[in-house]
Amino acid sequence: MNGKQVSKATLQRLPSYLTYLRTVPYRENISSAAIAGELGLGEIQVRKDLASVSGCGRPKTGYRTDKLIADLEEFLGYKNIDNAVVVGCGRLGMAILDYNGFSEYGMNIEAGFDADEDKVGVSQTGKEILPTEKLEEYCGKYDIKIGILCVPPECAFQACRMMVDAGIKAILNFAPVCPSAPEGIIVKNVNIAAQLAQLANSMANREYSEI
Amino acid sequence: MNGKQVSKATLQRLPSYLTYLRTVPYRENISSAAIAGELGLGEIQVRKDLASVSGCGRPKTGYRTDKLIADLEEFLGYKNIDNAVVVGCGRLGMAILDYNGFSEYGMNIEAGFDADEDKVGVSQTGKEILPTEKLEEYCGKYDIKIGILCVPPECAFQACRMMVDAGIKAILNFAPVCPSAPEGIIVKNVNIAAQLAQLANSMANREYSEI
Repeated sequence: MNGKQVSKATLQRLPSYLTYLRTVPYRENISSAAIAGELGLGEIQVRKDLASVSGCGRPKTGYRTDKLIADLEEFLGYKNIDNAVVVGCGRLGMAILDYNGFSEYGMNIEAGFDADEDKVGVSQTGKEILPTEKLEEYCGKYDIKIGILCVPPECAFQACRMMVDAGIKAILNFAPVCPSAPEGIIVKNVNIAAQLAQLANSMANREYSEI
Repeated sequence: MNGKQVSKATLQRLPSYLTYLRTVPYRENISSAAIAGELGLGEIQVRKDLASVSGCGRPKTGYRTDKLIADLEEFLGYKNIDNAVVVGCGRLGMAILDYNGFSEYGMNIEAGFDADEDKVGVSQTGKEILPTEKLEEYCGKYDIKIGILCVPPECAFQACRMMVDAGIKAILNFAPVCPSAPEGIIVKNVNIAAQLAQLANSMANREYSEI
């Protein structure tokens, strides 16, 4: 990401612009109205968001699609590959370990770790699965600072501590608990069940149109 | 969820209070300071959030833990089971189909659907996997309004249309595209790769302490 300051809300919307631009049938130019319509956002908001990362918008013609994609990738840091590891190779962890969509977002999953010796080996796509006690050595050797936590809830606190001890600074946590981490460690919780429940509530209540 | 109006930000924090209370070693009473400390939130914010769903807080003694859990569950609608289906039974879809943590959030995954006939059958935990053409009949018969979309990106638009045609009103979308849905359908996108990239950026930039 470059040095420009953008709001957290803008930053959260930027990946969806990129996802949309990458998947829409190719056209040389694209208008803010088309993007706004497709993503259910206001046109002014789209223009404001994109102005903060790209100067390629022109009145009437819109944005040059390839330039806008490149500017978004540059801004979001997707051109510099970041390595990460998965801790907990149950079914969700294995699905994430072998998922092939990370590179488009500048991410690479290097290896998986599991406390269960039976899981140690190689994944379906050939990624190494190592015993958890190798985590610290591995992260040190390959300078890995990002971990994805996919262990059962009862193991989450301990696994989180091991990750922090191994030098991991940012954790994407799929365990349905909120492990506390020391100052300076970022934890982002992705609780799939809670998100589904929130969606069900939104549907039932229609209290707001966007969640 | 009951009729009380709470802000979207509060609503997004409520599940983490519940998750924390369910996983912390049992104690009869719990203070807002303890909750705030564990979740990295301000104590005043915690008190304000919890006051909107529960009247069980008392000065000095704090909240009665079991009552607070019950009030949160009641407010969040976790006591009324909502049924959902998974569309796309690849590895992520199968992991979600068989995940056993949904009931705590008032959700139940009824069945999976896949366009690939080889996937049709029964999952590891005994959930039915049906061909996609049965989706409409099934959702109509069992009055299912919630779907989890786990198909590859190139199939997402078509699968989303089929879900809407089947009467689904709320979609939790794991495909890394943003399918447009007609008015009245809620789509919540969970792009794991984008979330990981955002986490990596946050770590690199430390522009904000909470994401």
